Amino acid sequence: MTMITDQPVPDTSPAEVSARCAGAAAAADELSELGTWPPARRGRLLRAIADALDEHRSELVALADLETHLGAARLTGEVARTTAQLRLHATVAEAPATLGVVADVADLAAVPVPHPALRRFLRPIGPVAVFAASNFPFAFSVAGGDTASALAAGCPVVLKEHPGHPRTSARTAELVVGALERCSAPAGTFATVRGLHAGSALVVDPRIRAAAFTGSLRGGRTLFDLATRRPDPIPFYGELGSLNPVFATAAAVTARGREIAEGFVRSVTLGAGQFCTKPGLLLLPRRHGLAPALIDTVRAAPPSRLLTSAISDAFAATREQLGGIDGVRTLVAVEDSGGGSGACLFAVSAEDLTSNAALFEECFGPAALVVDYGSETELLELASAIPGSLTASVHAEPDDDEMVRRLVARLARRCGRIVYNGWPTGVAVSRTMHHGGPWPATTSPLHTSVGTTAVDRFLVPVVLQSVPRRLLPHPLQEGTNAGTSHG
Amino acid sequence: MTMITDQPVPDTSPAEVSARCAGAAAAADELSELGTWPPARRGRLLRAIADALDEHRSELVALADLETHLGAARLTGEVARTTAQLRLHATVAEAPATLGVVADVADLAAVPVPHPALRRFLRPIGPVAVFAASNFPFAFSVAGGDTASALAAGCPVVLKEHPGHPRTSARTAELVVGALERCSAPAGTFATVRGLHAGSALVVDPRIRAAAFTGSLRGGRTLFDLATRRPDPIPFYGELGSLNPVFATAAAVTARGREIAEGFVRSVTLGAGQFCTKPGLLLLPRRHGLAPALIDTVRAAPPSRLLTSAISDAFAATREQLGGIDGVRTLVAVEDSGGGSGACLFAVSAEDLTSNAALFEECFGPAALVVDYGSETELLELASAIPGSLTASVHAEPDDDEMVRRLVARLARRCGRIVYNGWPTGVAVSRTMHHGGPWPATTSPLHTSVGTTAVDRFLVPVVLQSVPRRLLPHPLQEGTNAGTSHG
Repeated sequence: MTMITDQPVPDTSPAEVSARCAGAAAAADELSELGTWPPARRGRLLRAIADALDEHRSELVALADLETHLGAARLTGEVARTTAQLRLHATVAEAPATLGVVADVADLAAVPVPHPALRRFLRPIGPVAVFAASNFPFAFSVAGGDTASALAAGCPVVLKEHPGHPRTSARTAELVVGALERCSAPAGTFATVRGLHAGSALVVDPRIRAAAFTGSLRGGRTLFDLATRRPDPIPFYGELGSLNPVFATAAAVTARGREIAEGFVRSVTLGAGQFCTKPGLLLLPRRHGLAPALIDTVRAAPPSRLLTSAISDAFAATREQLGGIDGVRTLVAVEDSGGGSGACLFAVSAEDLTSNAALFEECFGPAALVVDYGSETELLELASAIPGSLTASVHAEPDDDEMVRRLVARLARRCGRIVYNGWPTGVAVSRTMHHGGPWPATTSPLHTSVGTTAVDRFLVPVVLQSVPRRLLPHPLQEGTNAGTSHG
Repeated sequence: MTMITDQPVPDTSPAEVSARCAGAAAAADELSELGTWPPARRGRLLRAIADALDEHRSELVALADLETHLGAARLTGEVARTTAQLRLHATVAEAPATLGVVADVADLAAVPVPHPALRRFLRPIGPVAVFAASNFPFAFSVAGGDTASALAAGCPVVLKEHPGHPRTSARTAELVVGALERCSAPAGTFATVRGLHAGSALVVDPRIRAAAFTGSLRGGRTLFDLATRRPDPIPFYGELGSLNPVFATAAAVTARGREIAEGFVRSVTLGAGQFCTKPGLLLLPRRHGLAPALIDTVRAAPPSRLLTSAISDAFAATREQLGGIDGVRTLVAVEDSGGGSGACLFAVSAEDLTSNAALFEECFGPAALVVDYGSETELLELASAIPGSLTASVHAEPDDDEMVRRLVARLARRCGRIVYNGWPTGVAVSRTMHHGGPWPATTSPLHTSVGTTAVDRFLVPVVLQSVPRRLLPHPLQEGTNAGTSHG
């Protein structure tokens, strides 16, 4: 068990940030498809990290519970999710498809232009800056999905710790570095930095070739601007904030209104409302009659503490601000028990919602808006008005099919995942998952931070023209004419 | 034959730019996988455009020759390349893989988290702003690769014409619009705008969801900054400028020095040095003895005119500037025949090259630097020092294999295509091509503007969770468990 002291953990100095980036750049050569750690060998590294975390699970959970108040049950589950994610990315690293080799022999008869022998493959983009999130001290932190997918791609990682769980971060980083050392991974494959200024220095360091971030719209925008204003801009993959609207039809409310109300509140209050997929908006038909069920369920929800006092203060301020907006009624607001856990629901009309931009911003914590709509037309208009979102959910009955088809077509332009008769919280880590969406949900709508395709963010195509097979490193000799994505 | 007059073509007003973007947004719904023009139907549009261009080839070539001085032979070939490219993208649109459907059934026993039924597919990103290039009045202009790949993805296009060939652009646009009308494509599927201010207005229009650009570093950076500084930043795919270095080993120079010298000069002067893949740098072993062959070949090259007087003036200025840099010797400089065609070669040492940033910038036109290196170590160091480039070429003999492997490993980090014993000009349009590279070659190293994977720039993943098959539009019902890129 690591000793927990009250000693403040010092920030990383600019010189140290630079040194860690230099280390990552040196490791990048070794980790490439042309180095000593080609994809097929990289899986070992990810499994060693997963094993180390599993082995020290109780210690990590205890540390994280002290720092985040998320509770041992949730945190134990999160470590399991994190190590499963690392092992899934190990299989990604080892899959031949990750090298993306596609080859064509020379075709001197091609019309209009004869073409030479071409062999395309994917290389790691280079050192990646990862910015850890507050709300998942394991799954989106030191050894979380961004780190796992960057390493699977062959990219060294320099990780900016989240200040909300410094000791959990430090201990996890020790375990990661220890596991990499036991595998004889190149020095510099993984390092951490700490502090706001270190984070800014990291994203503009010339050796960093891409950045991944999960956090607030404000923090994400600041770092995105730094990344894109560099003399040599780099890709910045940020997940910034999401409203995650839930649409319920009249038929669904008639058939199972109470179930919808209870399910919504459970999803809103899960993890104290601190999930990026927390539904922040419930759209119900006018005269839905669900207010009592919603209020009762909020009142019955178990009390919980927010992650940090800064988050708690911000939540209290947003709660007060939302309650003061013209047209917004407070349906229920649980007394703040000191740690900022006071769950609350606000009611607002569709007109007031669309005329006030503040209502379209994510509120981080257990709060949500309930909006009533007057007609299917208004419901469809609202679907086109919502800002870019990670998810949207639809509760409907078979009689609604025609309208649901139209709703899904609109929502597909606004969000990365559409959930039918279910809730957005709980993101499966799989090859089919997409955790993304148009701005402000993410900075890069083509990409996901969860699931196996997260690795695509860090892979860059290169074509070898007329290069003889004998000159190719072994992994690149495997290519065939099959495997292209566009026949 | 269209009448060519000297009437100035007016710029597009802000109100007109906005109206064209609104038209594109309306068309976007129809072109989507959920609209009336799913991918399988879109191929028709691309083939109709190709047919219209082929049918009017002589007229287009005559117009373009007047405006660009590129000559009938080259321009006739370019029309053929352009229509072949449109037809290739028609097959991309029709390929089931373009929808990217990957589905997993629910797995309630999944560890650590059970997961629901998930079906991922790719949707068109929405209206795309395309900025035409000067140097390919067909292949990178109105109906060029960016337009073809955006339409294949299901994205309406608003194209900013290049001022270097206004009448060719206007006539091509007429043919495109006519072809789309004959197919009953949605109004707004394709429109053009004209003028610098119209271009700026286009890239910040809220309906535009992505932009594609081929042109100068300066112009591209300006538009990239506009795109990334929007309240809702959009992907900006720019190809900006490339040095395209050529490395030759001592053994290669001994075996076929004259051939290398002649091939290099031919590649430098092809199309008056106005290709984005023009080799701008030749690295030769010290005491290579190739200066006479290089000089003779430059003097023997046929005279040619640059595209526009602005380009001609810029070339003359850069030529003078380069010749005045300390340590730069003029090997040969053909008299400027009035149109700015004066091809020239400069010689510089490896030390002077790496200590002067101006020498690492692309010079648009028939000029290049010849650099001599002292050792293999110095050659490898130069390979790591070059800026991001679309291509790099290596001339070597079998005895050089060991060194070439190391050189290729380094170059793979700096450029998008490596050519062995060949020249970078002449870019095959195929499923294996990658025409991209790290900044400043492009703004987005993951993507290509040539070849079938160019369509990937405009496709955005969406996941449907627990959505019953009956609610899916027909094309999305096709999904199977196969076809994922990371098994």
